[in-house]
Amino acid sequence: MGKFKSENNLSMLIDFYELTMSNGYIDHCIEDTICVFDMFFRKNPDKAGFSIFAGLEQVVEYIENLNFSNEDIEHLRNTDLFSEKFLEYLKNFKFTGDIWSVKEGTPVFPNTPIVVVKAPVIEAQLIETMVLLSVNHQSLITTKANRIVRAAKGKEVFELGSRRAQGYDAAVVGARSAYIGGCTATACVLAEQKYSVPAVGTMAHSWVQLFDSEYEAFKKYAETYPANCSLLIDTYNTLKLGINNAIRVFNEVVLPKGFRPKSVRIDSGDLAYVSKKVREKLDENGFEDVKIILSNSLDEHLIKGILQQGAEVDCFGVGENLITSKSDPVFGGVYKLVAVEKNNKLIPKIKISGTLEKINNPHFKMLYRVRDNETGKAFADYLTVFDENVENVSDITLSDVSATWNKKHYENITLEPMLNKIYENGKLVYDLPNIEEIRKYCAKEVALIPSEVRRFDYPHTYYVNLSEKLFKTKTDLLEEYSK
Amino acid sequence: MGKFKSENNLSMLIDFYELTMSNGYIDHCIEDTICVFDMFFRKNPDKAGFSIFAGLEQVVEYIENLNFSNEDIEHLRNTDLFSEKFLEYLKNFKFTGDIWSVKEGTPVFPNTPIVVVKAPVIEAQLIETMVLLSVNHQSLITTKANRIVRAAKGKEVFELGSRRAQGYDAAVVGARSAYIGGCTATACVLAEQKYSVPAVGTMAHSWVQLFDSEYEAFKKYAETYPANCSLLIDTYNTLKLGINNAIRVFNEVVLPKGFRPKSVRIDSGDLAYVSKKVREKLDENGFEDVKIILSNSLDEHLIKGILQQGAEVDCFGVGENLITSKSDPVFGGVYKLVAVEKNNKLIPKIKISGTLEKINNPHFKMLYRVRDNETGKAFADYLTVFDENVENVSDITLSDVSATWNKKHYENITLEPMLNKIYENGKLVYDLPNIEEIRKYCAKEVALIPSEVRRFDYPHTYYVNLSEKLFKTKTDLLEEYSK
Repeated sequence: MGKFKSENNLSMLIDFYELTMSNGYIDHCIEDTICVFDMFFRKNPDKAGFSIFAGLEQVVEYIENLNFSNEDIEHLRNTDLFSEKFLEYLKNFKFTGDIWSVKEGTPVFPNTPIVVVKAPVIEAQLIETMVLLSVNHQSLITTKANRIVRAAKGKEVFELGSRRAQGYDAAVVGARSAYIGGCTATACVLAEQKYSVPAVGTMAHSWVQLFDSEYEAFKKYAETYPANCSLLIDTYNTLKLGINNAIRVFNEVVLPKGFRPKSVRIDSGDLAYVSKKVREKLDENGFEDVKIILSNSLDEHLIKGILQQGAEVDCFGVGENLITSKSDPVFGGVYKLVAVEKNNKLIPKIKISGTLEKINNPHFKMLYRVRDNETGKAFADYLTVFDENVENVSDITLSDVSATWNKKHYENITLEPMLNKIYENGKLVYDLPNIEEIRKYCAKEVALIPSEVRRFDYPHTYYVNLSEKLFKTKTDLLEEYSK
Repeated sequence: MGKFKSENNLSMLIDFYELTMSNGYIDHCIEDTICVFDMFFRKNPDKAGFSIFAGLEQVVEYIENLNFSNEDIEHLRNTDLFSEKFLEYLKNFKFTGDIWSVKEGTPVFPNTPIVVVKAPVIEAQLIETMVLLSVNHQSLITTKANRIVRAAKGKEVFELGSRRAQGYDAAVVGARSAYIGGCTATACVLAEQKYSVPAVGTMAHSWVQLFDSEYEAFKKYAETYPANCSLLIDTYNTLKLGINNAIRVFNEVVLPKGFRPKSVRIDSGDLAYVSKKVREKLDENGFEDVKIILSNSLDEHLIKGILQQGAEVDCFGVGENLITSKSDPVFGGVYKLVAVEKNNKLIPKIKISGTLEKINNPHFKMLYRVRDNETGKAFADYLTVFDENVENVSDITLSDVSATWNKKHYENITLEPMLNKIYENGKLVYDLPNIEEIRKYCAKEVALIPSEVRRFDYPHTYYVNLSEKLFKTKTDLLEEYSK
């Protein structure tokens, strides 16, 4: 547990209504009612075919540190809304429930449980805000980073967005998410220190402007960093000045010291065109190994375009569009009550809505991925009621949820359980992988979902099927409520 | 200074290149070169006519806490990129420069300095990332919140977005920004504790679902909170069930205890239509004083529409669209070198670009607001070189920057200095206002800019004029570089 000790007490990062409800549960002596809550989401950002789950490590860190201080209690007491019994409860708060979750880095799909909390209702309620906040934020950024990385087709992507991030954690935790999604480095030093994401960076325009000439600025930089010489060449004029000054300094400073220069960065202009001209000049001068880094408000679409135009590029630096997921900056995960225990039996619950898509899948469920036994490829996800045994299932018929007559039969498959037990009776029972493991797992799993689901434009909808038992539970509940 | 003591050491929240550059400055013994950096932005989010500045308090908190720990130094030493002299410098780092800034809550305009740092280049560089991050984030959210508040035309707006915020600070500091922008409350308890933003909240759908019936759920809630009875009435069917159950419970529980019920909240359906029907039912039953709160993915445009349709509403709850500024989630503030001291004289610097708009205003500047002496109304902003005296200016001719023949003469005006000195020789000399003062100042100042600039659709461009001296400095520099 010491591993997760944090300086930050985030216990009060909670929606006020969690507290008013919790105080109410205690008032009516129902705080220990066992409930099941699902975290799920309804649509993928950017009209994509899938999202990537992240943020579990921070949920664990939060729960391990959950602790209402005397100051916190006093603050709440002053609102005059809460009973002393409730405040006493908070003082001794400890999470005692069970939590299941998919692994960080897993491709996930709408309307499937990605975190499941089974706990006394008061506990499940008190952790709601932070579970949603952590998972929503990190899944958003990981998903976006992965899109950008896939658009870059094997070229490196650096995350450079700290200055445009929505707050401090957004920069630091965001860099973690970006790395999980496939970026190779960040500009944020604290992300390196805290999460082992490699930090990179060379110079800003201010370095170049500070000196009397660009040549002098490059020369001084090379003198300090002959072994790591990367130059920003667009401050005045990339093709007329920048690249020539860079080559001159490579020859005059870097080579004589016995090193090879590393890279040049271009941050403005027509990147596709300029990069080709820069590549030519570098190659003509024997610097075929010097890399070209491109930046300037890039995203997955610009990167795709730049590559299609035959740009000469080794690395993309991506800032604001990644760190805020600018084109779709909200991951809309929700946390809904799906079952309540009564007389030792779980009663399924549903939230009805006028909008069909807003009706959730009731009950305590398990999530399986339908895998081809030979290739490991994922065909679909499969939801069951928690107590169904699917261990020996080796073939399955799946249907398109919005066109159920459209059926497909799969043989030689396995139903892989996707929900891992993270907490059991309040005890952390999951061995959290390190960030390199998560990053590798993510790349591997994304490659195993259908390519039609992965594509950016009009992706196929990945099948998510309910077991017969679950389907009946749902239709029975809808029937009941319609009366 | 104790006031700003924070548990969070954010000194390492810094772009890596600030460190490589700083190490280079020391290597070449130029770290003490006095430089002036401007923070400014190039366009308003959401194609608006203005933005609102915020985040200064967090910049101050950061600077007061800036301190590289032994751990930090060790981390940097392990990169093998930095000299011992530089690491020793970091160990003893203290900001010794001057900072000017506009006040939090001030309407601000593109291409004007909103923060000015005059300091040894190494210090100005080391604080860049956090100055940008704090101001970009908070100005973004304050600006968005203010749009939503103005759309609500006097109805209250609650900020309810924590669960969809981009990280923890985004929720907490974001709630602060939202309050400055005019929201009246937040759901985030930590924002109340940390920044005195009033926290509010009643119940989620899960409270209603937990009980055997909605009636029972409402009854239990009212029993616990008879003096603060606010009910969420859309879990099953707002008009057929929710409002009737609410009225029944108001009559059976709240009134007999001698209280008046507070409000009902509607979170789905056609909000304009449903709110009118709910109002009718409430009024028919003698609950004219019970307020109606509307929520469900609202933003300024939806709110405007809902009001235009004659909705009956007292308060809007706004979540993800506010806390992420979803429609435009990046405030693109930049930090550019504008002058360098040489032989005790400030030499203006400019960044040239192929794109006209990317050419910045050079030199150490002062920012003034042209005010009507009688009404206090703002006509334009006016930029001068730092040493110009405009104290006695009482009339001025202003021109449209993109149509300079379009001139207008104003008499009986004052040039109000907008940049306040925050730091002098590293010492905090500014008395930071409290959040209520900032919020009031913001509302007052927004009302003083032209209504044509305030409107959402195709707002007028607010004039920002350069003094003759500054204009000449700029054209001379451009002339020089074109050679």
